[in-house]
Amino acid sequence: MNIPFTKMHGLGNSYIFLDLFKYQIEEELLAPLAIDIANKDIGIGSDGLILIHPSIQADVGMRIFNKDGSEGKNCGNGLRCVAKYAYENNLVESKTFSIETKAGNVTAEIRGDRAFVEEVTVDMGEPILKRNLIPMEGNADEQVIAESFEISHHPLVVTAVSMGNPHAIFFVEDIAEAPLTELGPIITVDQRFPEGVNVEFVEIVSDKEMHFRVWERGSGITQGCGTGACAAVVASILNGFANKGEEICVHLSGGDLFITWANDGHVWMRGNASTTVSGEFYWNPKS
Amino acid sequence: MNIPFTKMHGLGNSYIFLDLFKYQIEEELLAPLAIDIANKDIGIGSDGLILIHPSIQADVGMRIFNKDGSEGKNCGNGLRCVAKYAYENNLVESKTFSIETKAGNVTAEIRGDRAFVEEVTVDMGEPILKRNLIPMEGNADEQVIAESFEISHHPLVVTAVSMGNPHAIFFVEDIAEAPLTELGPIITVDQRFPEGVNVEFVEIVSDKEMHFRVWERGSGITQGCGTGACAAVVASILNGFANKGEEICVHLSGGDLFITWANDGHVWMRGNASTTVSGEFYWNPKS
Repeated sequence: MNIPFTKMHGLGNSYIFLDLFKYQIEEELLAPLAIDIANKDIGIGSDGLILIHPSIQADVGMRIFNKDGSEGKNCGNGLRCVAKYAYENNLVESKTFSIETKAGNVTAEIRGDRAFVEEVTVDMGEPILKRNLIPMEGNADEQVIAESFEISHHPLVVTAVSMGNPHAIFFVEDIAEAPLTELGPIITVDQRFPEGVNVEFVEIVSDKEMHFRVWERGSGITQGCGTGACAAVVASILNGFANKGEEICVHLSGGDLFITWANDGHVWMRGNASTTVSGEFYWNPKS
Repeated sequence: MNIPFTKMHGLGNSYIFLDLFKYQIEEELLAPLAIDIANKDIGIGSDGLILIHPSIQADVGMRIFNKDGSEGKNCGNGLRCVAKYAYENNLVESKTFSIETKAGNVTAEIRGDRAFVEEVTVDMGEPILKRNLIPMEGNADEQVIAESFEISHHPLVVTAVSMGNPHAIFFVEDIAEAPLTELGPIITVDQRFPEGVNVEFVEIVSDKEMHFRVWERGSGITQGCGTGACAAVVASILNGFANKGEEICVHLSGGDLFITWANDGHVWMRGNASTTVSGEFYWNPKS
């Protein structure tokens, strides 16, 4: 099979995109295709596969497959890429449009023109702050703000936020000294987080700027985690380090994101996306 | 820059190929291009970059860049891919032709037709058996055949062969039990090999067949190492397990190679190559 594709990334988080407006593929081939196409040696190489498809309930739809073939719900970096692709390829009419995902519809806003979308802002929804919904062990209705968190004899202080996935945020004086490699793999599987947790260390520069490093649940250290940056900004505001309704620049290893926790409760993420490759993948599915 | 490319692999050893018959690129951009294009996140993803270029001294030429941007000399898996590409794209006239490499000219033979090359046989040259040329410490003029080699309290027996790069071959009863993960990283930097060494464990099935696992110098465990398979066959013949002038099937993790140490001293390697992707890479070189 000759499969036309586009490859894009946001903050170095790369996906292969199939445009189902132009090319269709059978459902049962999707998981094996994701595994093969994401493989650097026998395929192209990426963090996964994203389908861009016509939608009834939104202006355009996306589905995301991880590189192990499992289907995911949503991905902030992938969403910006989908929005850029959809606008540049005339799949949507206006600069503000909705994207169907497995986690619900998401609003995206474009900055740029049809020839080149410079930036995309996406509505990442409302943070979940109730302890039992994050989920984290303890008194169900409480929030988890600046709570003592002892681990491996390190007396840490944690703030926990869910953006659909759980995040444990730890503020540090100097991001370069954050014990990410040492404690990331331990905290991410700590039993106080029954579904595991993404581990983020954050250095506050000012009420407009922060440095951010992440150990992603199931992935380890990554260059950028969109939901993690959102959770870090929410945690900063909960701790009084920044303000609701103001945009905050988050410096990640893979680049910058600009996050606003709006007064209506939604978190907006602004950032860019890059198109790196287009071509055809020559695939022989194993029967 | 929009750079047209083809991606191919031999035994899962993948390269991005640029056809310099059609597209030219400045010399000073090659190293940064190799680094970026081989990167799975911001580029395509591969083990390196190979240029296919017009040659005066041979029918076609190749240059190979590793993913760190350094220029290599030769690569058995890459050579089969170059030969397949050159014949399918009418860059050469006959089914037997010469390829210029930084390690000298190499003869390649095609099986298949212009529409689809099934297999390629390449002349990997003569093995180097003199100890000081492999190089390995000890009496300069000796060969290294079934010599005691104690490491980490394992009493191993080594045969050493160079195919332009040094190989240490260890015969085992059962390839599944070979201590590759444990001893590979130790032997590869052992001081008895002043330039380091590729570490190969080999299980002889018969005088026509063997299993092979490799720890590549600088890379770790890989699915296939063409020069390593050649060295393993030469070592088997030196130890009396197989015969000169007869083709031997080597089972690697990534697939099979068929190796002959011919009576004229040259080692021939037969195997396939796969074309997986073609397209354009959109590249912004860092200035």
